[in-house]
Amino acid sequence: MRIVIDAMGGDHAPGLIVQGALDAAAEWPDIQLVLVGDTAAIQACIQGTKPSNVTIEHADEVIGPDEEPVKAVRRKKQSSMVIAGQLVREGQADAMISAGNTGALMTTGLLVVGRMEGIERPALAQLMPTMDNIGVLAMDLGANMDAKPEQLLQYATIGSIYRKQVDGLKEPRIGLLNVGTEERKGNELTKAAYDLLEASPLNFIGNVEARDVLQRNCDVLVCDGFAGNIMLKAMEGTASTIMGTLKTEFKRSILTKLAAAIMMPGLRSLGKKMDYKEHGGALLLGVNGLVVKAHGSSDARAVKNAIRQTRSALISDVTACMAKEISGK
Amino acid sequence: MRIVIDAMGGDHAPGLIVQGALDAAAEWPDIQLVLVGDTAAIQACIQGTKPSNVTIEHADEVIGPDEEPVKAVRRKKQSSMVIAGQLVREGQADAMISAGNTGALMTTGLLVVGRMEGIERPALAQLMPTMDNIGVLAMDLGANMDAKPEQLLQYATIGSIYRKQVDGLKEPRIGLLNVGTEERKGNELTKAAYDLLEASPLNFIGNVEARDVLQRNCDVLVCDGFAGNIMLKAMEGTASTIMGTLKTEFKRSILTKLAAAIMMPGLRSLGKKMDYKEHGGALLLGVNGLVVKAHGSSDARAVKNAIRQTRSALISDVTACMAKEISGK
Repeated sequence: MRIVIDAMGGDHAPGLIVQGALDAAAEWPDIQLVLVGDTAAIQACIQGTKPSNVTIEHADEVIGPDEEPVKAVRRKKQSSMVIAGQLVREGQADAMISAGNTGALMTTGLLVVGRMEGIERPALAQLMPTMDNIGVLAMDLGANMDAKPEQLLQYATIGSIYRKQVDGLKEPRIGLLNVGTEERKGNELTKAAYDLLEASPLNFIGNVEARDVLQRNCDVLVCDGFAGNIMLKAMEGTASTIMGTLKTEFKRSILTKLAAAIMMPGLRSLGKKMDYKEHGGALLLGVNGLVVKAHGSSDARAVKNAIRQTRSALISDVTACMAKEISGK
Repeated sequence: MRIVIDAMGGDHAPGLIVQGALDAAAEWPDIQLVLVGDTAAIQACIQGTKPSNVTIEHADEVIGPDEEPVKAVRRKKQSSMVIAGQLVREGQADAMISAGNTGALMTTGLLVVGRMEGIERPALAQLMPTMDNIGVLAMDLGANMDAKPEQLLQYATIGSIYRKQVDGLKEPRIGLLNVGTEERKGNELTKAAYDLLEASPLNFIGNVEARDVLQRNCDVLVCDGFAGNIMLKAMEGTASTIMGTLKTEFKRSILTKLAAAIMMPGLRSLGKKMDYKEHGGALLLGVNGLVVKAHGSSDARAVKNAIRQTRSALISDVTACMAKEISGK
C-alpha cells in the first residue's frame, strides 16, 4: 500500500506535512509513504533517522496556491503535485494526498491520474460531520460547476460504492440536494436527475435539504459542484462564526471563564465534530486511483488523519470496486 | 399606509397572526391594517373592542401549506391570500403580509399583484443576520430556480435600491454568491452575471463566499434561487443544530446549569442574532407593491416584526423608487 504525499502543498508545507506523514508512518507500518518535493527541504524536516517505510521523491517545482490550475498543471511537469499524480497513474502508488491548490489537484486528477472509464467528470467528495458521527458523503463539492443529470447519477453510483466498501453501510441512502423534499422541487438539473435516480437500482430516498445534513438525512448527498460548494461553505462559516462568538463570550469575565471550564468537555466534543481537521480530506472520486485533498491549512494532525482515511479506503479496495461496477454497466 | 394581513396563513393562524397585528396596530397608529380571512374566526381572536385602525375583509377559502402553488392560486380566488393580493393590485393596500404557503405567495405576487415593468422574475429577498446587526440582503432565495444572468443583474439593481431607501446605506456593496472570490470562478451563470454586474453602474465588489456572509461581506448578495435557498438552509440548519447541542450540554448537570445561568446574557444575544423571528419576513421584490412572507411558524412577535419591517419599507417609498429606476432604464 503506497501513498504519495505532496510535501510542498499547503499553508504549512513542508514542515507540518512531513511531520504528519512521519506520525502516520510510525502508527501504521503497513503503509509505504512517498514524500514528493524538494529533497533538501524535506530532509531538513526529518529529525533523526528516516523511518524505513518513508521514501523521498525529488521534485524541482511547486504549484502555488493562487496559480491558475490548468495552466499550472500543464506547465509545471516537475512540480511535486504533478509528479505525485504521475506515480499514481503509472501504478507506482495507489493514492496521492495534497494540501495544495485545490483546482490544480482536481486538474491533476483529471489530466494526470486520469478519469475512470464510464465517468464523465470526477467529483470532489467529502464526509461531512453529522451529530451521530457517521457522516454524510457529499459530492460534488466543487470539481464540476455545470453538471449534467447523468453526471449526478454517476456521483450517486460511486458514492454508494464508497460508503458500502469503506464505511460498511449496507444500502447507502442516496439523497438529492434540493430546496425542498417534495418530488417536483428544484431547478431543471435536479428535476431531471431525480427521474434518473429514481429509475436506477440505487437506494434513492428522494430530495433532501441542506438544513438536515447534520442530522444525517442521507448517506450520500448528491449535488452539482456549485450548489455543493455553497452549502459546504455556508455550514463552515456559520459553525465557525458561532463557535468564535462563544469563545469571546466565555472570555468576557472571571465568571464566564468559570462557566467555560465547566462546559469544556461538552464544548470540546462539539468543536471536534465541527472541525475539518478531524475528518480527513476531501476525495476526488471517479479517477484511476485515490486522490485526496487535505485542507490548505492542514497541520500534522490533519495530514495524519488524511492518511488514516486513505489507508482505510485502500484496505477496502474501493477504487477497483468502483471501476468494476461502473464499467460493468 | 394600508397593510393587508393574510390572517389565515401560517402554523399559528389565525390566533397569533391576529395577535401580532393587534400589537402592531397599538404600537403604530399611523398604519391601517386589513385582516383578510374568515370573519368569525378573526373576530373570535379579538378580545375587547377592535382598534380603529384594524378592519376585517372576509375570505371564504384558505390555501393550505401543502397545496400546489399555481393550481391553488388559480382555483381559490376567494382565498385569504389571493384576496389580499387583489387588494394590493387594485391599490386598496400598499403591502401584504402572509405566513402561509411560500410558493403560493410567490405565485400570488407574480400573477395577482403583478410584476414590475422591467423585471422578468421577482426575487425572494431576506435580510440575513450578520454579527454587526446590519444584515446582508440576499436575493433570490427561492422564487426563480433557473435564473438568467440578466435576472441576477435585475436583482442587484432592485436590491441596491432597497438598501439605499430602507436601510439608508449610501452605496450598497453588491456581491455575487460564488465558490471563490477570484474573478473567473463559478458556473456559466455566475461568469456571465459577473460581466454584466461589472459593466453596470452598481457598486459591484465581485464574487463573495457563503462562509463570510455573517461577517457582512457585502450589503446585497445576488444569487439564483436554487443556490440561495441551499445557502440559507445550510446556515439555518447549522445554527439550529449547534444551538440545540449547546442547550443539551447546558442541561447535563447542576454545574452546567450554573454555567448556563452565567452565560445567559451572551447566549441570549447570540440566539437573538440567529433567530428569524427577530428579523421580520422575506420580501418578494420586483412586484407592484410590497409582498412580505413571514415564516410559517411565526408567532405574534414575528408577525409584529414583519409589520414593523413593512412599515419602514413603506415609509421609505421603496416600491415607487424601484419602479422609477427600473423603468427609467
